[in-house]
Amino acid sequence: MHVTALSGGVGGARFLRGLLAHIDRTPELHGSTVTVIGNTGDDITLFGLRVCPDLDTVLYTLGGGANEQQGWGRADDTYAVHGELTALGVPPAWFGLGDKDFGTHVARSLWLGQGFTLSEVTARLAARWGLPERGVTLLPMTDTPVETHVVLDEGEGPHAVHFQEWWVRLRATVPAERFVVVGMDRAAPAPGVLDAIRQADLVLLPPSNPVVSIGIVLGVPGIRDALRGTRAPVVGVSPLVSGRPVRGHADACLAAIGVESTAAAVAALYADFLDGWLVDDADAGSVDLPGVRVSARPLLMTDVEAAADIAGAALDLGRTAAVR
Amino acid sequence: MHVTALSGGVGGARFLRGLLAHIDRTPELHGSTVTVIGNTGDDITLFGLRVCPDLDTVLYTLGGGANEQQGWGRADDTYAVHGELTALGVPPAWFGLGDKDFGTHVARSLWLGQGFTLSEVTARLAARWGLPERGVTLLPMTDTPVETHVVLDEGEGPHAVHFQEWWVRLRATVPAERFVVVGMDRAAPAPGVLDAIRQADLVLLPPSNPVVSIGIVLGVPGIRDALRGTRAPVVGVSPLVSGRPVRGHADACLAAIGVESTAAAVAALYADFLDGWLVDDADAGSVDLPGVRVSARPLLMTDVEAAADIAGAALDLGRTAAVR
Repeated sequence: MHVTALSGGVGGARFLRGLLAHIDRTPELHGSTVTVIGNTGDDITLFGLRVCPDLDTVLYTLGGGANEQQGWGRADDTYAVHGELTALGVPPAWFGLGDKDFGTHVARSLWLGQGFTLSEVTARLAARWGLPERGVTLLPMTDTPVETHVVLDEGEGPHAVHFQEWWVRLRATVPAERFVVVGMDRAAPAPGVLDAIRQADLVLLPPSNPVVSIGIVLGVPGIRDALRGTRAPVVGVSPLVSGRPVRGHADACLAAIGVESTAAAVAALYADFLDGWLVDDADAGSVDLPGVRVSARPLLMTDVEAAADIAGAALDLGRTAAVR
Repeated sequence: MHVTALSGGVGGARFLRGLLAHIDRTPELHGSTVTVIGNTGDDITLFGLRVCPDLDTVLYTLGGGANEQQGWGRADDTYAVHGELTALGVPPAWFGLGDKDFGTHVARSLWLGQGFTLSEVTARLAARWGLPERGVTLLPMTDTPVETHVVLDEGEGPHAVHFQEWWVRLRATVPAERFVVVGMDRAAPAPGVLDAIRQADLVLLPPSNPVVSIGIVLGVPGIRDALRGTRAPVVGVSPLVSGRPVRGHADACLAAIGVESTAAAVAALYADFLDGWLVDDADAGSVDLPGVRVSARPLLMTDVEAAADIAGAALDLGRTAAVR
């Protein structure tokens, strides 16, 4: 079968790793292909280099090179470049970039500077991480540079900061007034994105942030329409357990757009195209949306096996949703 | 006193380190200032980052951060970025760039991209290496990007490669037909360069390559005229001992411009502005140029102390040349 998934960073990447593990352990799924449509709203130019945090987290996690403790960045990385930049008085990034990670960003910036599109650059990076051999295609949601900015009001009138500054430096503690996606008005889906949704056997929404990850992908003109129009069932996995995000600050993001932090409220954000919704046992019975089949099970991705079980449950839900 | 020196890479940097050591150990020279006019013809864009090998070698050597074994690059460096670029299939550079070194190039490229001139960028880098505190100002010869290319004929007609490719990858084994300095026609001396020559008490030519280091600096429109016109004595240190370069491939460079590899022939290249010429004992008596006072001593810079002695001898020669 062909699965297409939207994805943000750590949560999405770990779910996708579980999906691949589930495919590996399930003979009848062998030969399946997975297309991942990654959020690029977190993208940022740091030290003059283009950094794509969510795409990189997917690459590193699926490729076995991620730093498991922090979720993003490279395992066993060193920090010589960052140390030298600090010695030179270059203001530090809000998150530490390791030397191996710098290698990715130097290569990406080099290739973008040579005129390759972000799709082409991402395909090259995916090859380095062995994704094609595993049947995985990683597509950026768009080749147009877009950046999520956050409008804040810290008492001196509203001002905007890059999403990464709000998320990492401010740890989302300053309430967001709203999100502005710079560049989205002229963004088009990257080549292959709409076809991947239209031609999928199943579309999955991993437990990524519904506002600043999935929500940004859905904002690319044409993607939401494709989800509404696809014949494939669309199954989502709730990013909230008992109203709290498993990881990250989804609650702060939902508050900014005036949406309650519940599995039901998140499902409602997707109501126009959602066929199945997987929630945690803690939220069983809390979601009742017309046309949406709901299933409950433990949703904590404590390890790859647990993530594989969740992915398997999402596939099961897709199968039952398809035949309703 | 104020000394102005032209400089290439390793040879120039080690001579300048000796000069500073000599100033430090000589009470009557305390308070002296040194302006270094660095060759930028070796500059190259690698991995999308702007690398200035000669300026960096001067910075690292004077700042105590150079890799003493190879002469250029940073001491105790690691190679994680380069390793990742290799894993990504990016063609390698002709010389290994360490991670700390990458920090320099990332910062330089960032600042150049922000619109700072190479002079301004170099001043920032010099501050990190403590040059101002030591009375040293490092100026690029020009803020205009220039690159020395080498015309080769390997049997299939002439073609040109970047100087670094000829020097490092080919180790100057393929005979150079000639050198072309791309961009030199529109280059102007960087701010302060001409004044540093005009207002110096002494101008020094370290034992840098006479063709691709000193020769390139002399090619910047205005610099040679300033050397001819300055009231300061101009003293050079021969880069050849018994006709052989102490380091590097000066002989191959001289052959390309049809000049004999001798201390006398190199001095003749500078005859229009040279007042003093320091040669090795092995070359004593071999140089006889009108208006040029010649002195002989050992010229091998075996350690900082030896380089300081050579620098001291160059200062002495400047004093006697000044009173002739």
